[in-house]
Amino acid sequence: MIDVCLLGSGGSMPNSKRFLSAVLLKTAGKMCLIDCGEGTQVSMKLLGWGFKKIDVICLTHFHGDHIYGLFGLLSTIGNSGRNDSITILGPKGLGKIALCIEALIPNLPFEIIYYENPHTYNFHNLEIQTINLHHSAPCLGYAFYLARQRIFDVNKALLLDIPKYYWNILQKGKEVVYNNQKYTKEMVLGHKRRGIKISIITDTRPTEDIPNFIKGSDLFICEGMYGENEDNEKAQHTKHMTFQEAAMLAKTGEVAEMVLTHFSPSLIEPENSLHNAKAVFENSFLSYDRMIIKLKFK
Amino acid sequence: MIDVCLLGSGGSMPNSKRFLSAVLLKTAGKMCLIDCGEGTQVSMKLLGWGFKKIDVICLTHFHGDHIYGLFGLLSTIGNSGRNDSITILGPKGLGKIALCIEALIPNLPFEIIYYENPHTYNFHNLEIQTINLHHSAPCLGYAFYLARQRIFDVNKALLLDIPKYYWNILQKGKEVVYNNQKYTKEMVLGHKRRGIKISIITDTRPTEDIPNFIKGSDLFICEGMYGENEDNEKAQHTKHMTFQEAAMLAKTGEVAEMVLTHFSPSLIEPENSLHNAKAVFENSFLSYDRMIIKLKFK
Repeated sequence: MIDVCLLGSGGSMPNSKRFLSAVLLKTAGKMCLIDCGEGTQVSMKLLGWGFKKIDVICLTHFHGDHIYGLFGLLSTIGNSGRNDSITILGPKGLGKIALCIEALIPNLPFEIIYYENPHTYNFHNLEIQTINLHHSAPCLGYAFYLARQRIFDVNKALLLDIPKYYWNILQKGKEVVYNNQKYTKEMVLGHKRRGIKISIITDTRPTEDIPNFIKGSDLFICEGMYGENEDNEKAQHTKHMTFQEAAMLAKTGEVAEMVLTHFSPSLIEPENSLHNAKAVFENSFLSYDRMIIKLKFK
Repeated sequence: MIDVCLLGSGGSMPNSKRFLSAVLLKTAGKMCLIDCGEGTQVSMKLLGWGFKKIDVICLTHFHGDHIYGLFGLLSTIGNSGRNDSITILGPKGLGKIALCIEALIPNLPFEIIYYENPHTYNFHNLEIQTINLHHSAPCLGYAFYLARQRIFDVNKALLLDIPKYYWNILQKGKEVVYNNQKYTKEMVLGHKRRGIKISIITDTRPTEDIPNFIKGSDLFICEGMYGENEDNEKAQHTKHMTFQEAAMLAKTGEVAEMVLTHFSPSLIEPENSLHNAKAVFENSFLSYDRMIIKLKFK
């Protein structure tokens, strides 16, 4: 299973009402952070999941509301006693962020590994994929897939007379040779099972590729900079989306549910606009700071 | 007069209880900011003095709790419609901050002028002086002096038969030639008057030079990282001060009042330690977020 926390729900500028949109994923005790605007570490402190276990930071793009909290967060992780390296993924231009990190935090006690514009990246059991978005700067969308072990087929194992004390090892994918007989995982595993898919799309205009990229997500986290359909022109100008546009992606992408985030500071009460999303895609919800969603295998 | 706002009272790391220590000075509608840790712009927004009128930013040093809010603040000032240049003062090493500002905020609509390690700098009617402090990184203390116009000597002006409609012009220091007679400010101005002095000392161990530098300040803002006298060893190790050490500077410097700030996150209730400062220097006070002090000419 994966725990997802939406650390903030705001876009553009930090203010006292909302932290900036950033997402924390936790699975098997390991954490992955997506974006880190100014103040993200304060919201993380309020959340209480700790700082030390963040192994991967995925940056969507380098606008301030998505990265200016990175320097403080990395310092704080450094003060948490972490020595293991951290991997930072980001679009084209990640090198200049690397230079700033080195200049601003000269004595970090861990190494940082940078992957500029990666297509995929595997982190523990999580497979990360990226897509190029259409914003006013190079920008990546992310999809996270947590694979589920294939079902254990007891009947098959009994039929093939597999020694019981090797069942668990074989289930984990290892091979065993016993009495000159080779046993493999195929001898105990049954059909494949669906894992958990989460996709995060921010900041962008809708693109043709997004629905396929987010296809079948259990959770689709999407920017909703503007609430009203009439804001469409503004959204086109600033390369963002309205609630309605986000919902159309959710519908075409056949996701299970969509959570809207990255609200404009001018969008004081997003709940008054939620109907615009629900009219297109019923399973639309609004994020709020430190909203937690627990996703389980089905 | 000068309005002083202590935007935050915390040191080391930002948290939800205290913003990081940063000070805003406002005089004649112009503003000067001293330090800018992560979240400073949020506290400024809560304060409501606006962003556009900041002409000078004085950085004491480049530890994260004093500068990581700079990128977001400059972006926000850029969005406020400002086109006039901003001057940033700071200790040795300011160049690397300049590089990061350029890399992280590529499209600022105003110019930034950097003064590395300045001895003095004049900003409108404010004379800024610096002192080298003793911290774990190059660090500057700042003193601000707002001069006061000399008193207008009505008797002298009447005695010398100065035309009344030139009094105001002459008082402002200009010269007038009228009926072949030259009039100067000396013909209307009386004795000199004391201005307003504010000094800000953070982060540092006490040094021999500080008392003379802060001498006679109307307001002395000083770091008080640790409250208890027993924390002295810790303060020596981290190159900070206890309340008692700050108070000894205030006393030797013969300041009018001292406000303590930059409290360690471990100092949950600084009010329980204030007596340690007051035992040495009675006019000691604790800062709190967005504490405002109005200083008038005496």
